[in-house]
Amino acid sequence: MPTTTSLGEDRLFPAEPHTRELARELYAGIAEAPILSPHGHVDPALLATDRPFADPTDLLVTHDHYVTRLLVASGCQFAELGLDPVRPADPREVWRRLAAHWHRFAGTASAYWIRHELAELFGVDEDLAPENADRIYDRIAVTLAEPAFTPRELFRRFRIEVLATTDDPLDDLAAHRALAADPAFPGRVLPTFRPDAYLDPEADGFTDRVQRLLAESGRSTGFAGYLAALSGRRAHFVEHGAVSADHGVLEPAALDLDPAEAERLFAAAIAGRLDPAGARAFRAHMLFQMARMSVEDGLVMTVHPGVRRNHHTETFRAYGPDRGHDIPVRTEYTENLRPLLERFGMEPGFHLVLFAVDETVYSRELAPLAGFYPSVYVGAPWWFLDAPDAILRFRSAVTETAGFYRTSGFIDDTRAFLSIPARHDAARRTDAAFLGRLVAEGRVALPTAHRIAADLVDAIPREVFKL
Amino acid sequence: MPTTTSLGEDRLFPAEPHTRELARELYAGIAEAPILSPHGHVDPALLATDRPFADPTDLLVTHDHYVTRLLVASGCQFAELGLDPVRPADPREVWRRLAAHWHRFAGTASAYWIRHELAELFGVDEDLAPENADRIYDRIAVTLAEPAFTPRELFRRFRIEVLATTDDPLDDLAAHRALAADPAFPGRVLPTFRPDAYLDPEADGFTDRVQRLLAESGRSTGFAGYLAALSGRRAHFVEHGAVSADHGVLEPAALDLDPAEAERLFAAAIAGRLDPAGARAFRAHMLFQMARMSVEDGLVMTVHPGVRRNHHTETFRAYGPDRGHDIPVRTEYTENLRPLLERFGMEPGFHLVLFAVDETVYSRELAPLAGFYPSVYVGAPWWFLDAPDAILRFRSAVTETAGFYRTSGFIDDTRAFLSIPARHDAARRTDAAFLGRLVAEGRVALPTAHRIAADLVDAIPREVFKL
Amino acid sequence: MPTTTSLGEDRLFPAEPHTRELARELYAGIAEAPILSPHGHVDPALLATDRPFADPTDLLVTHDHYVTRLLVASGCQFAELGLDPVRPADPREVWRRLAAHWHRFAGTASAYWIRHELAELFGVDEDLAPENADRIYDRIAVTLAEPAFTPRELFRRFRIEVLATTDDPLDDLAAHRALAADPAFPGRVLPTFRPDAYLDPEADGFTDRVQRLLAESGRSTGFAGYLAALSGRRAHFVEHGAVSADHGVLEPAALDLDPAEAERLFAAAIAGRLDPAGARAFRAHMLFQMARMSVEDGLVMTVHPGVRRNHHTETFRAYGPDRGHDIPVRTEYTENLRPLLERFGMEPGFHLVLFAVDETVYSRELAPLAGFYPSVYVGAPWWFLDAPDAILRFRSAVTETAGFYRTSGFIDDTRAFLSIPARHDAARRTDAAFLGRLVAEGRVALPTAHRIAADLVDAIPREVFKL
Repeated sequence: MPTTTSLGEDRLFPAEPHTRELARELYAGIAEAPILSPHGHVDPALLATDRPFADPTDLLVTHDHYVTRLLVASGCQFAELGLDPVRPADPREVWRRLAAHWHRFAGTASAYWIRHELAELFGVDEDLAPENADRIYDRIAVTLAEPAFTPRELFRRFRIEVLATTDDPLDDLAAHRALAADPAFPGRVLPTFRPDAYLDPEADGFTDRVQRLLAESGRSTGFAGYLAALSGRRAHFVEHGAVSADHGVLEPAALDLDPAEAERLFAAAIAGRLDPAGARAFRAHMLFQMARMSVEDGLVMTVHPGVRRNHHTETFRAYGPDRGHDIPVRTEYTENLRPLLERFGMEPGFHLVLFAVDETVYSRELAPLAGFYPSVYVGAPWWFLDAPDAILRFRSAVTETAGFYRTSGFIDDTRAFLSIPARHDAARRTDAAFLGRLVAEGRVALPTAHRIAADLVDAIPREVFKL
Repeated sequence: MPTTTSLGEDRLFPAEPHTRELARELYAGIAEAPILSPHGHVDPALLATDRPFADPTDLLVTHDHYVTRLLVASGCQFAELGLDPVRPADPREVWRRLAAHWHRFAGTASAYWIRHELAELFGVDEDLAPENADRIYDRIAVTLAEPAFTPRELFRRFRIEVLATTDDPLDDLAAHRALAADPAFPGRVLPTFRPDAYLDPEADGFTDRVQRLLAESGRSTGFAGYLAALSGRRAHFVEHGAVSADHGVLEPAALDLDPAEAERLFAAAIAGRLDPAGARAFRAHMLFQMARMSVEDGLVMTVHPGVRRNHHTETFRAYGPDRGHDIPVRTEYTENLRPLLERFGMEPGFHLVLFAVDETVYSRELAPLAGFYPSVYVGAPWWFLDAPDAILRFRSAVTETAGFYRTSGFIDDTRAFLSIPARHDAARRTDAAFLGRLVAEGRVALPTAHRIAADLVDAIPREVFKL
Repeated sequence: MPTTTSLGEDRLFPAEPHTRELARELYAGIAEAPILSPHGHVDPALLATDRPFADPTDLLVTHDHYVTRLLVASGCQFAELGLDPVRPADPREVWRRLAAHWHRFAGTASAYWIRHELAELFGVDEDLAPENADRIYDRIAVTLAEPAFTPRELFRRFRIEVLATTDDPLDDLAAHRALAADPAFPGRVLPTFRPDAYLDPEADGFTDRVQRLLAESGRSTGFAGYLAALSGRRAHFVEHGAVSADHGVLEPAALDLDPAEAERLFAAAIAGRLDPAGARAFRAHMLFQMARMSVEDGLVMTVHPGVRRNHHTETFRAYGPDRGHDIPVRTEYTENLRPLLERFGMEPGFHLVLFAVDETVYSRELAPLAGFYPSVYVGAPWWFLDAPDAILRFRSAVTETAGFYRTSGFIDDTRAFLSIPARHDAARRTDAAFLGRLVAEGRVALPTAHRIAADLVDAIPREVFKL
């Protein structure tokens, strides 16, 4: 029998009554603050076209690889989840599968967010279960057809002030332009320059992609032309409101090569003749070059390292990327980033936000780096770590060395537009819980905690991301 | 003066009253559930012969390297602990040494288990101390002589339903056969196939051992014969009820070699001419082959990596293995296991349980792997990590990514038969404490928490270990 | 408006009332215990000369790189902090900068200590802020001029019984001699032998330094003479009361080289012709030799590894060492220290205290090592980890494997004389909080917890550091 699960007002707060009271009070001061989302993966066309959402499964399951991966782990086939391009699935059947396995999500971040969405957006206050799967499906489907459920209406209702997307360097940014030009649209939707596939000689299609880049920018084919073309695309992004450039790399290695060596590696890369060591050096040099360009054009540099993408090759071949088998690896920042920080770490105006999926680096490397270099900020817990307990571990590991003001503020990093309020709310509650504990333990005065809580959702992200 | 230390009914529950109440309620639902122990090191002869236990020291000290190592660290000589084969020690003297150093165990898992055993089995409700050492020794000695204290009687009293042992591939499994054939014996005692010493060319006596394996199975001496012989012994284990094959390796590296290369390495290994790189490749290939065989014969594959065995060579030479100086090392799973998971990770029916003594991998590698691959389960906290705080850290690190259902359920992994109920009880209490917190924080509904608590001690280990 | 922030009597205790009560009770038993400070960096001349402190900024800001680094990270220039040797700053202006950025320190260990000092020593019970910066500055300045504020008066008031300094091997130890000879001085100030710069061929000025060492001791220039000279300086330290020798290394690697190889590396090192691999081997061999000497002369060997010093070279060149950009790196102990432990780990009387800034090693390597080798102790949380949450993580990670008695007791490791009571008090409160939780959870009996709390501040450091 399904369980009634009204979202408690005190959810995510510590159970101890005095600390809970403090957390509740701190949270109350920021619960309604506008959302600043300076890094994420929402498709800007969603808002530009303002098409209604398709169906509950499309909305909450199919595009959320956090959800589908755990269904795959539970024994579901990709085709059964509607993820096989040649074998479509009935959305209602997929939804029933989610319901059948729902207890397996208990305790995960995904379960928390979906419960929040079901309750807050669709008024569903019972736990999803096989017995109520159809009923809940129908209820969501009916709601989705209402005029209040278009992406733009929700954008307004969610109180989103800034939403950054993540975009290919060759993207014309037409959707962003359209939104910026629309006086009726209530917020800012900013592109983010994400050049990974243009910087990694081992990425599929690297040569073609770079050739297109060079062709579009009318540059010569040498390394200087390549740098100029990248710089030109960055300028295009800056013109369209971009505030940051994002870098997804396996290791955060940076290297300052001499120009002749860079030229040589670039030529070999384009010719497809670069060995793994050369590719590694080239990637590291390009991370260094990206820092140099950030110093010049002011784009905040964000680095998301440490994930082995597409761990199961056969799944990648059959179903494409972002299918839930990107697996973290140990990551090293202190030595890897040193050449970059030696050169640019003290540059005024340079901002480098370092994210991690290897939480061992929080106390060991990231807090000490951000506790010295004015350019370095510790990125909010990311991906697998964007969840209440992990956020508390992050704060515990970072704060005693670097305080709150050397961290980035929350980023939701999500494709799932509907989950944005749930994610920000969870982060706010968790930070309030952490601050409440520090107050209860006599480590931070309550007025200071109020200021920090407010700054974490406003002044800090504005400063870090130059909003 | 010794301290009275009656085991509190609420031990291991959080102090916060509401959370404690929830933990107590959740625990009450599983406190009396039968014990499933799908991995451990109890000698099956103990139950087959049903000999009474020798004396308190033999029972609680000498064979427990968790206990003797801390006595050695406290300055005791091996001979003073009865561990020197040529210089026997008076058991009562050894017991007095334990009592003299007992305060040094405060806060350790061992101290918790021993207190549980003293209280629950022997009615001792005071802390061991020099003043009461003899009195407690005598009380235990008297109790051990009672008919209710034979291994079989305790097996019944402990409500053990399944107990897996760990066995040499050439073991004839006579003890298991005898127990299975005895209608009066109340449970299942299952062998576990543990082939490490037959797979590692650098293990002492590798060549002789493999020659015996080949001789027993009447195979030719090539690599194919070796594989067939291993497969034959696995079949023998399956016939005797085995459900899993266990692999203790330094690093969980897997490698798919081509047959000619494997043949070449095998020949060199047998001839004692394999260099370290070759030995590493051979071991990695054999881990791969073991996965292949598990796919074929259905034995659950468990991997216990990351321990540098016998760190102090002189101690190993004088007193043998399992003397408390097996020391963990950093362990990597994402890249090391990739070849194995590329090939077998999505195979229906394949179960791979990954244990760790390097807890950094819980959130970084194991939860993400188990959150995608249907074959992968995160093993319960093992060895140094099988203790209340470590279990809470494990649940905190794993649950938000992989939930509860991608974990293995508790395994006690113990040689110490008497400690089995204490260990399972501690794990149940700790899981109840963790779940109680999630309920108190509004993250899991109470009925769902009840279901999870019950599944963790029953449905989950049955599924994972195919019981 | 500045916040009133009287130091709560229950600060650093858990919020849950019953646990707090237990923590309070445990703390009460040790709050007034004398301070044993067996490792730190106070200048002995401070006490020998007994000069009054200069001004509030000199006292609390300029010499504390924990504080200045976070001001640099907040955008302050070195010159603005009085750290530029050619551009002095007005101390009051520096103090105002601290006040302007004070909210950025909230939650850090430094903020906690400074609040403690302001409140306990200067009666300041409001949070530092721009509005009260001058007022607080003046109040401190006035107080510093009082006769009760000389270093010796404070030493007495702080109830310091033992204070170890850290000294160059060629130091004549005149200050220590003077203090020891002064019958009016109320405690012991012990030198510590710190030979890093004499053992690392890659340290600036290595050859000159070693030549001076050899010249002073009148030895021949070979490796044997070098060892004898080091041994001679150790004897000088022992004569002056030293109890330990401290080793700051990047990695805790130890290696037993044969004499000819050591001789060869030494000759190359002195000649400045050693390659990086040779330098690494030489350093590792010298760590091994230092252990050998510790076995012989009884000096406790402490190792502080895992910090990449002076990460930003330009800052190092302009402003010297200890400027806040020493950044930790991953550290490995199990394999690195094995040669040393194979040889000396079981030697009676040998004490090896292993510190870490990589907290992943606590449960994985250090607790298991200290849980077996009688010589090994787990050092108290160090540097970035010397803070309440980090201390709780340390205790949680270490205790279940190694208990409390295989840890070192607190060391303050500080240059900041005034912060000594704050640091010891914070450690005592935090240990009381941890023990209170174990009692509340039924894991340790209250009388045992009292004994442990008392031993942690007295018997344990006396044993570990042979005081």
